[in-house]
Amino acid sequence: MNFKEELNIYSQEINFYLSQCVKGQGIPCELVKAMEYSLLAGGKRIRPILCLIWGKMLGVNFEQILPFACGIELIHTYSLIHDDLPAMDNDDLRRGKPTNHKVFGEALAILAGDGLLTHAFSMMLSTPLPPHLIVSASREIAWASGPAGMVGGQVLDMLYTGKNSLDLKELQKMHRMKTGALICGAWVSGAILARSAGADDMDEKMAREYGQAIGLAFQIVDDILDIVGNEQELGKPIGSDRDQGKVTYPALLGLTKSRELAEECAQKARASLTRYAGQEKDFLTELAQYIVNRIS
Amino acid sequence: MNFKEELNIYSQEINFYLSQCVKGQGIPCELVKAMEYSLLAGGKRIRPILCLIWGKMLGVNFEQILPFACGIELIHTYSLIHDDLPAMDNDDLRRGKPTNHKVFGEALAILAGDGLLTHAFSMMLSTPLPPHLIVSASREIAWASGPAGMVGGQVLDMLYTGKNSLDLKELQKMHRMKTGALICGAWVSGAILARSAGADDMDEKMAREYGQAIGLAFQIVDDILDIVGNEQELGKPIGSDRDQGKVTYPALLGLTKSRELAEECAQKARASLTRYAGQEKDFLTELAQYIVNRIS
Repeated sequence: MNFKEELNIYSQEINFYLSQCVKGQGIPCELVKAMEYSLLAGGKRIRPILCLIWGKMLGVNFEQILPFACGIELIHTYSLIHDDLPAMDNDDLRRGKPTNHKVFGEALAILAGDGLLTHAFSMMLSTPLPPHLIVSASREIAWASGPAGMVGGQVLDMLYTGKNSLDLKELQKMHRMKTGALICGAWVSGAILARSAGADDMDEKMAREYGQAIGLAFQIVDDILDIVGNEQELGKPIGSDRDQGKVTYPALLGLTKSRELAEECAQKARASLTRYAGQEKDFLTELAQYIVNRIS
Repeated sequence: MNFKEELNIYSQEINFYLSQCVKGQGIPCELVKAMEYSLLAGGKRIRPILCLIWGKMLGVNFEQILPFACGIELIHTYSLIHDDLPAMDNDDLRRGKPTNHKVFGEALAILAGDGLLTHAFSMMLSTPLPPHLIVSASREIAWASGPAGMVGGQVLDMLYTGKNSLDLKELQKMHRMKTGALICGAWVSGAILARSAGADDMDEKMAREYGQAIGLAFQIVDDILDIVGNEQELGKPIGSDRDQGKVTYPALLGLTKSRELAEECAQKARASLTRYAGQEKDFLTELAQYIVNRIS
């Protein structure tokens, strides 16, 4: 099976679980609709895939960590809904479809985000694994998505917008929090849950290194695509970073240097996999390259 | 020590913990300010107090459940910030002060709410008690504050606003989710954490009964105060429910019947305490009455 086929299989498993996880649980149907609209709108599912593969590579059962991995995707989805709000980035399109507030109105969009975030914790905390690992992995995700992680990064992004004197260190810190923290958290939480199958501190350390490198690469490529990408492939307008006065890697370093930096990150990610072997290692090696080479 | 003095001591302990729990953790200072503005703006601290007292009554150490109890107050505070937003209730005043978005702008207010919600889980998941109890208690709170609880209730409230044909059953369901679920969850999570000191299923059942009765009483009194309350004591304008076309208990039942219903709830709450004794039982008995008799 080649990489693309395998990626597809993981996505399908995740999409099926996501299509079931909000229904029939006493949630008002208008809210279910708004939550599912964004949750099931496609997306690369990178975060849950990262979490699942790590677990699998270290011997933990795929089904056992699926609720946890999918919880992370709910958190990612909530953050997109809130980011798109008129008071924030004011985006009309996401993944080629009208944004949540364009369809359901601002109030329901805010609540759909809040609902996804809280439901994510319900799901993660229902993972059928030893409680001390669930506590540790959920704390990792709460931290990564919280005010010292993703939410804090979003605040910095807002404060930095339109500011010309930003340097590379500040930009990297912002992205490490805004995008990198949850990507890395997904990966690290997979390593923590895999302790039930014998993973150790070194596995967690390697997971963190891989996660940090991939998180940074992902953001650099996002910035590059906002300049050279294809509107149809991306499902959102090109040039929105520039229009909003956002500082980006290409703006600071130029396109060539930005591409080099993304490639360096992919190399670093691959280097953190040296102690592993087998199908999952190959998959992760290719995933690092896929993230750098992606076109949407 | 009388009831008011005791309530005051609990509030002080909670307020001190809350004043420390956001600082110095790598959170951008602008976000710390916005989070603390609402978190430290006063409030009755009913939810963490409920959680703490239950624990104390069943023998668990006060300090051990303080992080968890305060986490619940962060969730309550986030919900107030989001409820006040222009797209939602569009309130300018909360506890006598300008609402969060009036001071920090809508974007930062949304993020301050998101930050409080995620940080709450970081705090709850750091409680120094056995992991299986932390998982169980945190899941209770995630459920109570989630789309089948508080967030769902807020959606129903929005959908019901301006609708004249609402009956008592629908109104009660909405409030059970919107206000009751987290109040009850605070109480039940205290009972779950107290299992570390020997609490059992019956204690959890009693906690749920007390919590449901108190939650309902709290909402009925809120509705009454919106009609007969004192603007200065409440710190918010009177009559906003009516102005917004909200269906309330007094609107459905009249003031006298609403007061009777609140009193009935307080009696039910007291009845769930019959198997207990001592200072905490007395405190909880008085708390039920205090919630019915409160003026703000």
